Amino acid sequence: MPIDELVTRHQQTLDDALSAIRTRTYYSAYPESPSPRVYGETAAPEGQAAYEALLGKDFPLETPGAHGRVATETSPFGPALGVNYPRVPNTTKAIDELLAAAQATMPAWREAGPDGRAAVCLEILARLHSRSFELAHAVMHTSGQAFVMAFQAGGAHALDRALEAVAYAYDEQTRTPATALWEKPAKGEPLRMAKAFHVAPRGVGLVIGCNTFPTWNSWPGLFASLATGNAVVVKPHPGAVLPLAITVQAAQEVLAEHGFDRNLVTLAAEDPADKLAAALAVRPEVRIIDFTGSSAFGDWLEANARQAVVYTEKSGVNTVIIDSTDDFAGLCRNVAFSLSLYTGQMCTAPQNIYIPREGIATNEGHKTFAEVGSGIAQAIEKLLGDEARAVEILGAVVNAGVLQRLESAPEGRDVVLASRAITHPAWRDATVRTPAILALDASDADVYTSECFGPVSYLIATNSTDASIDLFRDTVREHGAMTAAVYSTDEKVLDATERAAIDAGVALSMNLTGGVFVNQSAAFSDFHGTGANPAANASFTDGAFVAGRFRVVQSRRHAG
Amino acid sequence: MPIDELVTRHQQTLDDALSAIRTRTYYSAYPESPSPRVYGETAAPEGQAAYEALLGKDFPLETPGAHGRVATETSPFGPALGVNYPRVPNTTKAIDELLAAAQATMPAWREAGPDGRAAVCLEILARLHSRSFELAHAVMHTSGQAFVMAFQAGGAHALDRALEAVAYAYDEQTRTPATALWEKPAKGEPLRMAKAFHVAPRGVGLVIGCNTFPTWNSWPGLFASLATGNAVVVKPHPGAVLPLAITVQAAQEVLAEHGFDRNLVTLAAEDPADKLAAALAVRPEVRIIDFTGSSAFGDWLEANARQAVVYTEKSGVNTVIIDSTDDFAGLCRNVAFSLSLYTGQMCTAPQNIYIPREGIATNEGHKTFAEVGSGIAQAIEKLLGDEARAVEILGAVVNAGVLQRLESAPEGRDVVLASRAITHPAWRDATVRTPAILALDASDADVYTSECFGPVSYLIATNSTDASIDLFRDTVREHGAMTAAVYSTDEKVLDATERAAIDAGVALSMNLTGGVFVNQSAAFSDFHGTGANPAANASFTDGAFVAGRFRVVQSRRHAG
Repeated sequence: MPIDELVTRHQQTLDDALSAIRTRTYYSAYPESPSPRVYGETAAPEGQAAYEALLGKDFPLETPGAHGRVATETSPFGPALGVNYPRVPNTTKAIDELLAAAQATMPAWREAGPDGRAAVCLEILARLHSRSFELAHAVMHTSGQAFVMAFQAGGAHALDRALEAVAYAYDEQTRTPATALWEKPAKGEPLRMAKAFHVAPRGVGLVIGCNTFPTWNSWPGLFASLATGNAVVVKPHPGAVLPLAITVQAAQEVLAEHGFDRNLVTLAAEDPADKLAAALAVRPEVRIIDFTGSSAFGDWLEANARQAVVYTEKSGVNTVIIDSTDDFAGLCRNVAFSLSLYTGQMCTAPQNIYIPREGIATNEGHKTFAEVGSGIAQAIEKLLGDEARAVEILGAVVNAGVLQRLESAPEGRDVVLASRAITHPAWRDATVRTPAILALDASDADVYTSECFGPVSYLIATNSTDASIDLFRDTVREHGAMTAAVYSTDEKVLDATERAAIDAGVALSMNLTGGVFVNQSAAFSDFHGTGANPAANASFTDGAFVAGRFRVVQSRRHAG
Repeated sequence: MPIDELVTRHQQTLDDALSAIRTRTYYSAYPESPSPRVYGETAAPEGQAAYEALLGKDFPLETPGAHGRVATETSPFGPALGVNYPRVPNTTKAIDELLAAAQATMPAWREAGPDGRAAVCLEILARLHSRSFELAHAVMHTSGQAFVMAFQAGGAHALDRALEAVAYAYDEQTRTPATALWEKPAKGEPLRMAKAFHVAPRGVGLVIGCNTFPTWNSWPGLFASLATGNAVVVKPHPGAVLPLAITVQAAQEVLAEHGFDRNLVTLAAEDPADKLAAALAVRPEVRIIDFTGSSAFGDWLEANARQAVVYTEKSGVNTVIIDSTDDFAGLCRNVAFSLSLYTGQMCTAPQNIYIPREGIATNEGHKTFAEVGSGIAQAIEKLLGDEARAVEILGAVVNAGVLQRLESAPEGRDVVLASRAITHPAWRDATVRTPAILALDASDADVYTSECFGPVSYLIATNSTDASIDLFRDTVREHGAMTAAVYSTDEKVLDATERAAIDAGVALSMNLTGGVFVNQSAAFSDFHGTGANPAANASFTDGAFVAGRFRVVQSRRHAG
């Protein structure tokens, strides 16, 4: 299909997305329900079959510079995937070849212009959308997300986030017109200059994927870089290659169908011992890096990959301030779900819950510190009481690191809720655990000021809500956070917490007691991360996330 | 005047500026002609008197942390200015005080919102505009620019560039609405969330001024940071303090009149031995840096001030490719003026002029390499033949460094045009020099790949125009450039040069033979710098120049 037909095909979706980012009201282009009524009767079994057909085989993809193959994935639900990918070894020769191939693709892609590139990106998203069920299985068996969550967060919501990034990229590139006639009044004839403004890509983009959200966290950077004219090298987490291999495959198919070089988007799978990401990140050809993962490596990238603009999402200590509530049961249910969803393995899951040591006022009367804790603990036990239902919320523990932190966390602490193991009815080898809650004091800053990634949260006794707010502001400023929440019936407390959240640079959810959870951010409306505290230097998605990925180069000449 | 009246007063100017940045056609809000017909009969003498009243005195400004005073300015036209400024010593105590005072100003300024801040910024620009003649003398006697140039580049054009930055800042901040109602369809009642999006400043901005364009190069960063909610510390070049002292004074007056803290904008004058800029630049409170000056210090800032977003304009090797022309006389006149204006002390002035060694085709027949050189040399001699007229183009040599480079440049080289000294009819102690032109060969890369800032240019013999274009691409990629120009009657050559300019990331002017010069960039239409080559990592002004100066922090709650 010629590019201009592709532009026409996707114009409405792009226009709707552009409108959504200007209003930040509700918008979604990809249905989140895996129901047969939405996706058709055959979609689910076909997607599962497509996924299963990939297992134990060579994944059909070629990467310049690759040598040999690697298979590094084991499902958190048990089986090894056995999918083999071209291995990019950490050698100068291999990296030279890979990056030279990427660079060679850019001139033709630049010529496609913002409209052509947006259309190709949307066609890639459509291709990925058509593989939603296959992708859901791939996300499930690499991240440990339960199936429906993998379908939603790994598919529909990730597609929405990617579309959002394409929309911002398009908007930013077209903010400056392609041409302008400049006419300056002068004595006699005016001075007239014809000007052209060319969008020039910055260079090769490197996307470094994570284990828990291989698509949701990688696609915004990938599509933002691609839409602004850059080639992209995707370096997946060794534990979550398949969702990004499918992504690269879909991208290459669409690119090739429209006459562009497949190597605009390449997969750089590695043997984990190779530490390929660090080697790629400091190469002069790499001018953009998108990273989700540990603060240690994120900080290293920011400090060392100085030839590139670096967008990081790292880690922090997400906070809940509990002051008072007119719906104690709703509070407990909501917090319980946020702590349980995907076994607390979300960068947005709460960790530090500040509660005045003298307790709180509620619609059920005064609740002591201990009663608040037991209220939340009971809500978790109720939520996860039915094991068949529990595994669909919890998913599986993604890797040994999370399990280790969970097992070592309670030592010498006051356990409000102990974690327990659950046997998955369908996947006997899955590692499934319920959340643990520990009680701490505000003086235990050595414990609660570092992130314990996984299903461990702390109820922290403070002297007062004012003290909670101060602690929140200081802790987030210093250690970062992706999310914060507050419960209060007092508008003054909500206002003070909001000011503290602005000071600390973290998004705040107030009095969530229903079907919205602090760990969820909705594409086109909620910003994920602010870039204003140490947990992340960027946001999904705003102007700053796209503006640095290209430059405008102008030319001018006298006009007749 | 209440803020809302100020918003009303400046709405039309802001709207016009917002429209101009979207079309990038001609726009100017501040008349560039110093004519009495425009500014009134008394403006010129009053401005001069205001300037003279400042000389030899304590400049009336207070800076937190300052101790003692410094007077560091001598006019390139001769006299020492003797203006004394509060000195900020390079001590922890002084810097602590200065930055604490700056930080304390931000919460109230944040509350003013994008509209209030834009209005206050435009009122500051109006105040500065009312001091145009005073500012012109201050710029003239610190930079060495001739009076009319100081009035235009240091006043009207700088005001336009500042307004452009305010417009981009406003546009970027208001891209996300202040509030949104999010309504997600659900079984039964939709989920409804009321969301608020708060613009949060990044932190203290540091503006590091330069000697040659103290206002034009500093105001965009200053006003971009201020308009986005940040406090700004202005660290002027020790040789060009006065224009920025006047700037800070005007800003403080307007801020105080509208109930804001004067210390939102402060002047950090230094004893040059203190190296204050480097000390300020790495402080954790400083989150934004705008710098114009040497590549050495700019590169140091980019490498070391990692807690901040750093916008730099450094140096490079501006290039002209001469292939052919249908107006040889116009070419020579145009290049001659570009080399002469302000004694070549513009970061946009050409240095490397590539000419095929076999000569070029022109409307006057074939011209040898030597004839092209003598054509340009003769045009310079004609332009600068009348000394009274010459000094109004040349201005004065800004400092000893430029003079030294000029005097040491010709050693052992083929001199096409020798520099000569001119006695300024009005300022006998002024250091005035005409440009020097040397002939080089393409093999002399050791000479022409580094910037010789000042009135020295090179005519470089290449094997062909193709070779010129390749040399241009490679040299700019490696060493940077702020500008490039090409002369050719062949559209293929223009296209190839344009592609090379996009590859190298430098703005290109084609066939300038009239009243537009390669060293000039018009606010609202021409981008100054691209951020795509080593000469600068930013541009006046685009989305990327403003997007990183603030963050959006959201809050959300259930809506009824």
